[in-house]
Amino acid sequence: MKLEDARKELISLQRKLAAYEHAVGILYYDGATTAPKNTADNRGASLSILSEEIYRYSTSDETVALLEFLDEHKNELPLKEQRMVYLMLRDIREMQKIPMAEYVAYQELLVKAEDVWEKAKNASDFEMFRPYLEQLFATEKKFAGYVAPEKNVYDYLLNKYEEGLTTQTLDKFFGLLRSELVPLIHKVGEMPQVDDSIRHGNFPKGQQEKLSYYLMELMGLDLGRVGLSETEHPFTTSLGSHLDERITTHYHEDDFVSSMYSVIHEGGHALYDTGSADDLAYTVLDGGTSMSIHESQSRFYENIIGRSRAYCAYVFPKLLELFPEELQDYTAEDLYRAVNMAQPSLIRTEADELTYSLHVMIRYEIEKKVFAGELEVKDLPAEWNRLYKEYLGVDVPDDKHGVLQDSHWSGGLFGYFPSYALGNAYGAHFLKKMRETVDVDTCIRNGNFAPVNDWNRENIWQHGCIYTPAELLDRVLGEPFDAHHYIDYLTEKCKDIYGI
Amino acid sequence: MKLEDARKELISLQRKLAAYEHAVGILYYDGATTAPKNTADNRGASLSILSEEIYRYSTSDETVALLEFLDEHKNELPLKEQRMVYLMLRDIREMQKIPMAEYVAYQELLVKAEDVWEKAKNASDFEMFRPYLEQLFATEKKFAGYVAPEKNVYDYLLNKYEEGLTTQTLDKFFGLLRSELVPLIHKVGEMPQVDDSIRHGNFPKGQQEKLSYYLMELMGLDLGRVGLSETEHPFTTSLGSHLDERITTHYHEDDFVSSMYSVIHEGGHALYDTGSADDLAYTVLDGGTSMSIHESQSRFYENIIGRSRAYCAYVFPKLLELFPEELQDYTAEDLYRAVNMAQPSLIRTEADELTYSLHVMIRYEIEKKVFAGELEVKDLPAEWNRLYKEYLGVDVPDDKHGVLQDSHWSGGLFGYFPSYALGNAYGAHFLKKMRETVDVDTCIRNGNFAPVNDWNRENIWQHGCIYTPAELLDRVLGEPFDAHHYIDYLTEKCKDIYGI
Repeated sequence: MKLEDARKELISLQRKLAAYEHAVGILYYDGATTAPKNTADNRGASLSILSEEIYRYSTSDETVALLEFLDEHKNELPLKEQRMVYLMLRDIREMQKIPMAEYVAYQELLVKAEDVWEKAKNASDFEMFRPYLEQLFATEKKFAGYVAPEKNVYDYLLNKYEEGLTTQTLDKFFGLLRSELVPLIHKVGEMPQVDDSIRHGNFPKGQQEKLSYYLMELMGLDLGRVGLSETEHPFTTSLGSHLDERITTHYHEDDFVSSMYSVIHEGGHALYDTGSADDLAYTVLDGGTSMSIHESQSRFYENIIGRSRAYCAYVFPKLLELFPEELQDYTAEDLYRAVNMAQPSLIRTEADELTYSLHVMIRYEIEKKVFAGELEVKDLPAEWNRLYKEYLGVDVPDDKHGVLQDSHWSGGLFGYFPSYALGNAYGAHFLKKMRETVDVDTCIRNGNFAPVNDWNRENIWQHGCIYTPAELLDRVLGEPFDAHHYIDYLTEKCKDIYGI
Repeated sequence: MKLEDARKELISLQRKLAAYEHAVGILYYDGATTAPKNTADNRGASLSILSEEIYRYSTSDETVALLEFLDEHKNELPLKEQRMVYLMLRDIREMQKIPMAEYVAYQELLVKAEDVWEKAKNASDFEMFRPYLEQLFATEKKFAGYVAPEKNVYDYLLNKYEEGLTTQTLDKFFGLLRSELVPLIHKVGEMPQVDDSIRHGNFPKGQQEKLSYYLMELMGLDLGRVGLSETEHPFTTSLGSHLDERITTHYHEDDFVSSMYSVIHEGGHALYDTGSADDLAYTVLDGGTSMSIHESQSRFYENIIGRSRAYCAYVFPKLLELFPEELQDYTAEDLYRAVNMAQPSLIRTEADELTYSLHVMIRYEIEKKVFAGELEVKDLPAEWNRLYKEYLGVDVPDDKHGVLQDSHWSGGLFGYFPSYALGNAYGAHFLKKMRETVDVDTCIRNGNFAPVNDWNRENIWQHGCIYTPAELLDRVLGEPFDAHHYIDYLTEKCKDIYGI
């Protein structure tokens, strides 16, 4: 094999795999957005065949020979291609340890589980979802045993979303958050609560949709390449490459704030994905490097920018234009206070910045226990409700508002939740760094996000998966990551809103 | 090879191809419904790779060997499997005559052409679309030359949608329609025109969407398996199998009738597709047997049922409920007369039953001439406008309302249009036959379409592609197809509306 030919083959192999991922991705996307409700089996049949084809191509003798040849010549390859070969070989070696039939059956299970989860959630019936969830946990555990028998199962799963992350690190991280945030939450609880009546009223879907596009454009998304759809649970996905990106939201006609911040959150993910350098398209380096860096971007736009006083002031006139009757008696300051209300609650995606990490911590504890064999799936609702009472002081009325609220488990995402909390904390440290060269507050005040986006593009987005999350953090921060910046940021916000 | 193994392999091969067709189908569907506007190239890249894979599987040595083995043993196969082998071998032998690179390039061209056509239509700029249309015509001609060098190019193309159809047959068919319908249209032109003001007004999209779902349910579509989306040009497609069907419509807020009859038309296609026997799913026998039989069903529901007096009376209360202010001064009879107004016009999809076939005839004449080398693509708008003046007496104001109005050519559908006129005529003959056992008028009056659907399912839908269109016509009619039933039907309608 000639090196030049092998390098070309490397690119065309990735292009082929990207086409298959495009097909699989759009089938999932269709299932979550547009597909009629009883078509999951039909879609599952096609998904399982296409997944089998991906598996076959990814692990074929030709592919392995190609990658091993390139790996032997890695010192002659450009940095990007070295990284491609490393990532692909790593995944293949993991994949090869999972029997093909089991891998394919799991893809089929995922499709059914997603469908059943949605029905179970609507019926608030955990028992309907339980057998699927048991299979999902069991399969992930079994796969972890195939791939990394030497590792703690949950550590292995955490690593899927964040290279090098361990329960040890997270226990420490969450320990800090708990010791610093719980007292803060208690103090807030003793203060008079803010008035959030501005968000409640009658906000027709059509008007909220206009707001979505306004927000997307304002934050600098290219609407020619980034689409918006409706789903039960908002998400962001690239289709084929970062050149076709989709975000989704869920409109509640009695509360415009919910979808508004979903759109900004998913829009942050979309900015990161679509910010990949164009020559990364159709390669394994396209898109974000880890889930926590991804969440650092989504939550940066949602919270640090979106829940700032300056942002609320900037968008308020547009809100007034869209919902004149409902908002005529309110001010931008009312919006700022309402969207920063801190109050223990039931739903993670609608939780405030302050209590958010506790929602994540509950999921972290539960996943850790199930994988350690210390908790059975059938006891999950009871444990969920117990932890919500213990950490957040709230009573969970039913499974819909409890253990069934998130789509993650039905999609096989175990070990993913901690990314949200890490992402928050990374974002606060990025902000400190960004302020050294960008006048962030003036940018927000003027609705001019180009300097902010340019900084993120330059430092984070363009690199796709070229660097590991740890390498990227090093490059961006130039100092060790420190979660205290996040604590400081939250403390300051509490001071501003509650005067404590 | 053992026969039993080969038969199993035949089923699993079709299942695999169905998964690929599902992927390709949903990528096209996404492009027409949801995708952001500048993502066609990204989608095209994936489509070309997936099409290449379909080509590879369909024409591989293993596939050909399998099918030829089964073909040798066809007398030992059940009828359905004989038909599968015949159809697949026929297509492969055609496909093998087209060089793979050209086939793949054509798939890519189709994606781009669809995108450019939409932009060109919106800009009413034929020149923007011309280079693509030239390539489309040229490629179809070249492919026809590869596949059937002995045949007239246009005859070959007609056969793609209707086995055995020739320009000779069509010249005769259109000749009859012309000689019978043109005088009728002239007579109608001399009568006082009906008042169609009921359809014009302000009909919000949201309300029209509710109407769509009402109509779909009324006609007996299973909304758990049949979805509705919006597109520039309405169409129907199966995804993976008839177990997931999608129809689309285009809402005009100043005229509810346009989308209303689009939905019934596409709903008719969807009834046919979803009526395939379930054991045909994921085989080449799934769905309709030819385009004209397909159109016979869509236009049966749209026109014969949907434009009947009884149907207008049945749905009028629902219309009044949805659009109380706009319709309060009208009656069901006003609706009936308005939707049956006969008047030469510009847009085929909105043409009335009487003049519709002339729109089709114009496209037939143009396609025939281009493929015969008697007309160049650059002269197409002028010829289009000339024929509209000659046959329909109308002046075409711009390309948007002229030569760019239909999506068919941008999708590579040449020789397809005649199906619409044939479908109309088949439907009228089916009606005569159906009346022998079903009291169609009472069914419509009561909004009870089960007996009508049962007759169609029994006689037409369940058979999928088991029979050729000619065989199916023979079975259903038990006598030679006769276009005079269609003439009679139209004559009676004119008498009722215009008193002639």
